[in-house]
Amino acid sequence: MRPTPATIACLTDFGTQDAYVGIMKGVIARSGVDAHFLDLTHEIPPGDIRQASFRLWQAAPYLPDDTLYLAVVDPGVGTDRRGVALAWERARAVGPDNGLFTLLQERLGPARAVELPSPTTRALHSTFHGRDVFAPAAAALAQGAALSELGPEIDDLVRLPPERLEILNPPGIRGEALFTDRFGNWVTSIGVLEFQPEHLVLSPWVRGVKGTKLPAANLAAILPDGRAVPLRRTFGEAAPGEALAYIGSDGLLELAINQGRAADLLPITPGAPILLVSRG
Amino acid sequence: MRPTPATIACLTDFGTQDAYVGIMKGVIARSGVDAHFLDLTHEIPPGDIRQASFRLWQAAPYLPDDTLYLAVVDPGVGTDRRGVALAWERARAVGPDNGLFTLLQERLGPARAVELPSPTTRALHSTFHGRDVFAPAAAALAQGAALSELGPEIDDLVRLPPERLEILNPPGIRGEALFTDRFGNWVTSIGVLEFQPEHLVLSPWVRGVKGTKLPAANLAAILPDGRAVPLRRTFGEAAPGEALAYIGSDGLLELAINQGRAADLLPITPGAPILLVSRG
Amino acid sequence: MRPTPATIACLTDFGTQDAYVGIMKGVIARSGVDAHFLDLTHEIPPGDIRQASFRLWQAAPYLPDDTLYLAVVDPGVGTDRRGVALAWERARAVGPDNGLFTLLQERLGPARAVELPSPTTRALHSTFHGRDVFAPAAAALAQGAALSELGPEIDDLVRLPPERLEILNPPGIRGEALFTDRFGNWVTSIGVLEFQPEHLVLSPWVRGVKGTKLPAANLAAILPDGRAVPLRRTFGEAAPGEALAYIGSDGLLELAINQGRAADLLPITPGAPILLVSRG
Repeated sequence: MRPTPATIACLTDFGTQDAYVGIMKGVIARSGVDAHFLDLTHEIPPGDIRQASFRLWQAAPYLPDDTLYLAVVDPGVGTDRRGVALAWERARAVGPDNGLFTLLQERLGPARAVELPSPTTRALHSTFHGRDVFAPAAAALAQGAALSELGPEIDDLVRLPPERLEILNPPGIRGEALFTDRFGNWVTSIGVLEFQPEHLVLSPWVRGVKGTKLPAANLAAILPDGRAVPLRRTFGEAAPGEALAYIGSDGLLELAINQGRAADLLPITPGAPILLVSRG
Repeated sequence: MRPTPATIACLTDFGTQDAYVGIMKGVIARSGVDAHFLDLTHEIPPGDIRQASFRLWQAAPYLPDDTLYLAVVDPGVGTDRRGVALAWERARAVGPDNGLFTLLQERLGPARAVELPSPTTRALHSTFHGRDVFAPAAAALAQGAALSELGPEIDDLVRLPPERLEILNPPGIRGEALFTDRFGNWVTSIGVLEFQPEHLVLSPWVRGVKGTKLPAANLAAILPDGRAVPLRRTFGEAAPGEALAYIGSDGLLELAINQGRAADLLPITPGAPILLVSRG
Repeated sequence: MRPTPATIACLTDFGTQDAYVGIMKGVIARSGVDAHFLDLTHEIPPGDIRQASFRLWQAAPYLPDDTLYLAVVDPGVGTDRRGVALAWERARAVGPDNGLFTLLQERLGPARAVELPSPTTRALHSTFHGRDVFAPAAAALAQGAALSELGPEIDDLVRLPPERLEILNPPGIRGEALFTDRFGNWVTSIGVLEFQPEHLVLSPWVRGVKGTKLPAANLAAILPDGRAVPLRRTFGEAAPGEALAYIGSDGLLELAINQGRAADLLPITPGAPILLVSRG
């Protein structure tokens, strides 16, 4: 019986109007790998490593254990940033060494890593790293190559600075606005949060931060302009057009307008400070 | 010999900029199902159940007989609307019970249905129903679970009100504008239409409406502002820039501008009344 | 052992908001073919045959040898343009005969071709050629049908006029701007270019043009307004915000703004003449 084909989870900022994603996958298909491609997204804003890193963090718990991540968001293309391959006990990843895998390592633990060889400078023309470096490395791993066959081991993977997350005293949490989703909701760095009968419990997703509890009553998110947005348990508790804070499906505090677009209506920009405090 | 993998036809309003679609598919891949995902579209306008229902109707005749439909367009998320699984002799479907499957049942006949269990209120954080409810149910069905294993049977599936379609006397048909496609053409509810030598024959796709015939000569669509747009057999019969009505590839009356965008140029809005009458 | 499923490389101008692409694939899945679909792009600007032809040229070297191309960009739908199937020693292609496969033949060599039967005029309603003509033909080929089973052989495939590419004297190359990519870079027809120690070598990708060499020093692209943009070996050689010409990953001259969008900032339109000359 043939084994279930490997899952290759793809994430890029290539967009879908050009054929770049198809070409990258074509290189892998051409190698004879019988893989299932699973597109996470190809619409990362060009060069937005932080959002790309977050998307990998967000998806990882829900993908097959032996997923091979092929992630290319690469504002440093044309500079001397390295290409890398990572391996955990079961999962693997390939992409540029620019911090893209920072949060994936928060999920899966520290990875072993190797540096991929640079494309030769004698190449016929410019390198499309997704096609010429990362896809061949992914194909090799999918066909059973050991990590060490791909390049020399390294122990200095680039890491992004952590998202902002601070415990306040008197009790509260300070984080930042990260980005908006398709529905116009703002995702923040405040989490992972869980409601308990009397408290809201914070189990930080950002390394080096300790957990805490806030009394569950009268909590509100404070926006940069001082506006207080009440924390609700469900969308249904907010009137149409009303702003609400809620715990999103990744456990992070999110900000929304019920039946509206917070992206257009709340005075927030990426990186803006957001507080979660008691108004009691 | 391994059987051909099941086809899971996916339709959502999640868009493709976030990783939500990939995460939903990841849950299914993680379960070990060797399925082929077939994306119908993920760009249903947010919350537009009627358009989603239409897309399932439009696609169903062309998909494998044993397709499993995973459809999530869910403006009522956070309320107490039910999740459901449906089964026909061969096809199955999973999604919210908000009328999304109304027109699929027009194609495939009445389905048996069960209510999916609600996510527990003790969950760590907010539910992403596509990921936490519908994908696991789809995975179970794809792995051979019987419908009855998923929940208690129900017989009161939510249905959308039917699209407008009326037979007029003197002879004519009144329908409504539904939406525009990528090329800017308006799709209407007037159909299913077929040209015969002397007549245009209506075999209604809307339940409860009887068929009729109109003399084939001098037919025109009448727009809300009274403008008459002649019915053509092909695009080639209209001059560049000219408005035309024609029978689209689903058998519904469509309105177009040859080499232009009817969406921008014709005075129509979704739901606007459209008449098809003889000008003879 | 089951053979590796065939790769069906899909390229259309259907967009992804409607379900047209999924329906076209559904027809093939319904036929029982166990194929892997590989999407090149479905966002070709509506009717832009030239860009579609280029995308197939761009992708072909990176796809499996036995790829089946299913390409539908069809501004002539509703006229009497033919549908065709093409075959090379291993690859096959299906689509409208409007020049779409011109550049694929530059890559793969001249193809044998047959004319697909027109849909019957007695059809119930309008034809969606992707669904009703091209997908069934692709399914037949994927299931092992010989090209000759699909229709009568033809030897007069429509070809697009070649892209502009001229050798100048004193030494230089005149080409044209083709289109912009997702990152806002302009792709031109000047290529295929390769740097050698002393020279820049042109091996033309446009049929009927002879190769040439330019001294490698002080080369610049001249824009339609007379502006000179220096040719760089890498993005890293240009300052942020600076315009540069460089050899793209397909070997064609491209024009960019480092960390900016040439599409917005350079005075170029599709088809505009671009020169590559020495300023020495």
